[in-house]
Amino acid sequence: MLTREGSIELSDITDLNQLKSELNHLPAVDVGDYISELPGERRAIAFRLLSKGCAIAVFEYLPTEIQEELIEALHDTQVCQIIEAMRPDDRVALFDELPAGVVKRLLPQLSPEERAATAIIIGYPEGTAGRVMTTEYVRLRQGLTVGEALAKIKQSDRDKETIYYAYVTDDSRKLMQVVSLRQLVFTLPDTPIQDIGSDRVIKVYTETSQEDVARQMQRYDLIAVPVVDREDRLVGIITIDDVVDILQEEATEDIQKLAGVASGEDSSLSSPWSKLQNRLPWLLGIMALYIGASSSIAPFQDTIAKIPVLAVIMPLFSNTGGAVGTQALTVTIRSLGVGEVTAADTLKILGKELLAGLGTALGLGLTMILLALIWTPPAERWVALVAGSVMAANSIVAVTLGTLLPIAFKQVNVDPALISGPLVTTLLDTIGFILFLSLITLSVNVWHL
Amino acid sequence: MLTREGSIELSDITDLNQLKSELNHLPAVDVGDYISELPGERRAIAFRLLSKGCAIAVFEYLPTEIQEELIEALHDTQVCQIIEAMRPDDRVALFDELPAGVVKRLLPQLSPEERAATAIIIGYPEGTAGRVMTTEYVRLRQGLTVGEALAKIKQSDRDKETIYYAYVTDDSRKLMQVVSLRQLVFTLPDTPIQDIGSDRVIKVYTETSQEDVARQMQRYDLIAVPVVDREDRLVGIITIDDVVDILQEEATEDIQKLAGVASGEDSSLSSPWSKLQNRLPWLLGIMALYIGASSSIAPFQDTIAKIPVLAVIMPLFSNTGGAVGTQALTVTIRSLGVGEVTAADTLKILGKELLAGLGTALGLGLTMILLALIWTPPAERWVALVAGSVMAANSIVAVTLGTLLPIAFKQVNVDPALISGPLVTTLLDTIGFILFLSLITLSVNVWHL
Repeated sequence: MLTREGSIELSDITDLNQLKSELNHLPAVDVGDYISELPGERRAIAFRLLSKGCAIAVFEYLPTEIQEELIEALHDTQVCQIIEAMRPDDRVALFDELPAGVVKRLLPQLSPEERAATAIIIGYPEGTAGRVMTTEYVRLRQGLTVGEALAKIKQSDRDKETIYYAYVTDDSRKLMQVVSLRQLVFTLPDTPIQDIGSDRVIKVYTETSQEDVARQMQRYDLIAVPVVDREDRLVGIITIDDVVDILQEEATEDIQKLAGVASGEDSSLSSPWSKLQNRLPWLLGIMALYIGASSSIAPFQDTIAKIPVLAVIMPLFSNTGGAVGTQALTVTIRSLGVGEVTAADTLKILGKELLAGLGTALGLGLTMILLALIWTPPAERWVALVAGSVMAANSIVAVTLGTLLPIAFKQVNVDPALISGPLVTTLLDTIGFILFLSLITLSVNVWHL
Repeated sequence: MLTREGSIELSDITDLNQLKSELNHLPAVDVGDYISELPGERRAIAFRLLSKGCAIAVFEYLPTEIQEELIEALHDTQVCQIIEAMRPDDRVALFDELPAGVVKRLLPQLSPEERAATAIIIGYPEGTAGRVMTTEYVRLRQGLTVGEALAKIKQSDRDKETIYYAYVTDDSRKLMQVVSLRQLVFTLPDTPIQDIGSDRVIKVYTETSQEDVARQMQRYDLIAVPVVDREDRLVGIITIDDVVDILQEEATEDIQKLAGVASGEDSSLSSPWSKLQNRLPWLLGIMALYIGASSSIAPFQDTIAKIPVLAVIMPLFSNTGGAVGTQALTVTIRSLGVGEVTAADTLKILGKELLAGLGTALGLGLTMILLALIWTPPAERWVALVAGSVMAANSIVAVTLGTLLPIAFKQVNVDPALISGPLVTTLLDTIGFILFLSLITLSVNVWHL
């Protein structure tokens, strides 16, 4: 049974009859999880216990590796039944991952209809509305009555999510109106549908990015949105369950890119090799960039040899400056990401960030002076003053870079989340080190402090 | 009209008749945006142009500050109409923000029904299912027929989102079954509803956290979920549009906390003062913590004075070590956050991270040696070897801390996202500096290198 926390307690796999009855009464996603966690050789056994309808539903919830494994383990007839019954968008996602040979074997065994639906979706680039849409929607011709429309919907009732809205098109499939099941149910059967349909259809285009689709649906609280081609002809719909997943993936990507995980697709359970590929190149890039920051210190080695307390203070303002920059950067990237602000708001955003930055600069500058006094010997107390001023200046630069860089990237259509925290930190360190060490050297050499 | 990109082009506010007709034909969310962006004194003018139904819909999309402003600017009768018509969960969210005096004035003017609905929701703690649910749902008594059920639904049809499922309860409101509008529509009217309803109702409890509700709905692809109390009595439902917003807020919080923005509620457009409050205390905390890292350098000032190239190399491995730790930390926090892994997977996760970490340590250690050779004079080439080894060791420590800290925090029920990147960096720096400078000092003093 499904426990309150959502985990499953099932009979041991040795009692197959008992297990069969339990599995066929659980939600498909839970059965999917159960099968995924079984040892490899038992997965096909458990899967064969499922009734046909149940098997089809469960299959869509399995991770691609396990789908592949089952496709090899099951009879071709069973595989074909499952593939035929999948939603076209899920089928395309599976085909993307399967070896080309397997796809070639499976594709001709699909019905002509399903093959056509697959071909349509597979023709759109990844990450666009065309690729994530499903072609299973209810389309009504203009001129039907409410009664005829309901009969049509009843007959085409294939999928629970795609039935709450029906789309009205003209003879060339051009999208004209949207009508909800609710409206149809509570209107007299001989009313023409155009009398109750809404002309103000919110729609997306096949080439719209999946993120934009998700934002639109979130904005207008839609549970499905129609997808049209450039001629405004209806080609599919996107449902809210896909949008929830898209928003989640996108947030994960933003978070990971900020931390310098290249693909934004790492997870705790990814293979060590893919983790390494996602992270090492970027770390090496950061080290290469940091040659600049370190090289900016090198010419000042004499100064450091004379006043070694500098080496105690420098990491402190480098670490704090990086933190200031990362805060501004993160808030800006997220606000751009969720569509709360655009480049047009640059001055407004920068104004607010700089005002807050002034407060930050004051607070951190004063703290820096106090802290530096801990380590500076009496003759070098003036170093604390310089450190405080540089900390304050560095905070202002940090806020400015953290705010403007992502907006600039967005303007030239580069993903702002690529400017990760450590990248900004590296830039800030270079500026801070040069400023600090120059001022100190100047003080020593010119004013003989 | 609504342009393809979703922005609005409206007539100038001086042509009020034209504007009125345009506003009343736009989606409520777009009108809300338009009004929000008007200068303060014009907002009430534009709002008064809206028809009653439109005004109610638009009001729910306005930010709380502007809702407050309009409540002051409009006639009490109009305010009461709007407040009365709001969904109870939105009304509670507004009351949370309004001055207590205004709430006291408005509450008695609500109808007894709506006042009761408000009181129920306001009684649950923020962030729980009870607080975000709506009490506007369709409840059917056991024993009705499909025809009677449809008549009941038609009569109680208040809100577009809450009608696609109806919930069947016994006389004590105990939740028994769920039935979809689709099932009702396509079943003969005299069928008893218990014959078509599903007993396998996925439900949440009033005290379930809003994040858990969101995960459950995402997992089971639901567009609404019933909320029950401890006695399994139906008290409300939560709809998918709220869940999309909850998931989004939660992702923003995770992202911002990682960057050390305290409340996780900062946005580019927050006031400078709230930005400062959200960020400065945390920066000061980081500086205070960093006293440890800097203090760990202080005793080695003699060594640095002798070998000033150390000050060139130290920031390089500190910066890179921090980046390694932040990567592991971010991936772990996000995987925990989306519920992909739990503490039970600790060993599996750590194994994978450490394997990847070994590769990282090797790559970064070797690179560190090469880079350090740029700056070290011939007599001090051995420093590069020590730097490389410490870089490698620091990478392993970074991966271990980045992986284990969030899991440990989660285990003791502290939000793992509180361990921000810079916090881990500070810890790593302290360890790295002590290790590096001790090894160097040892080499100088004991082996006289």
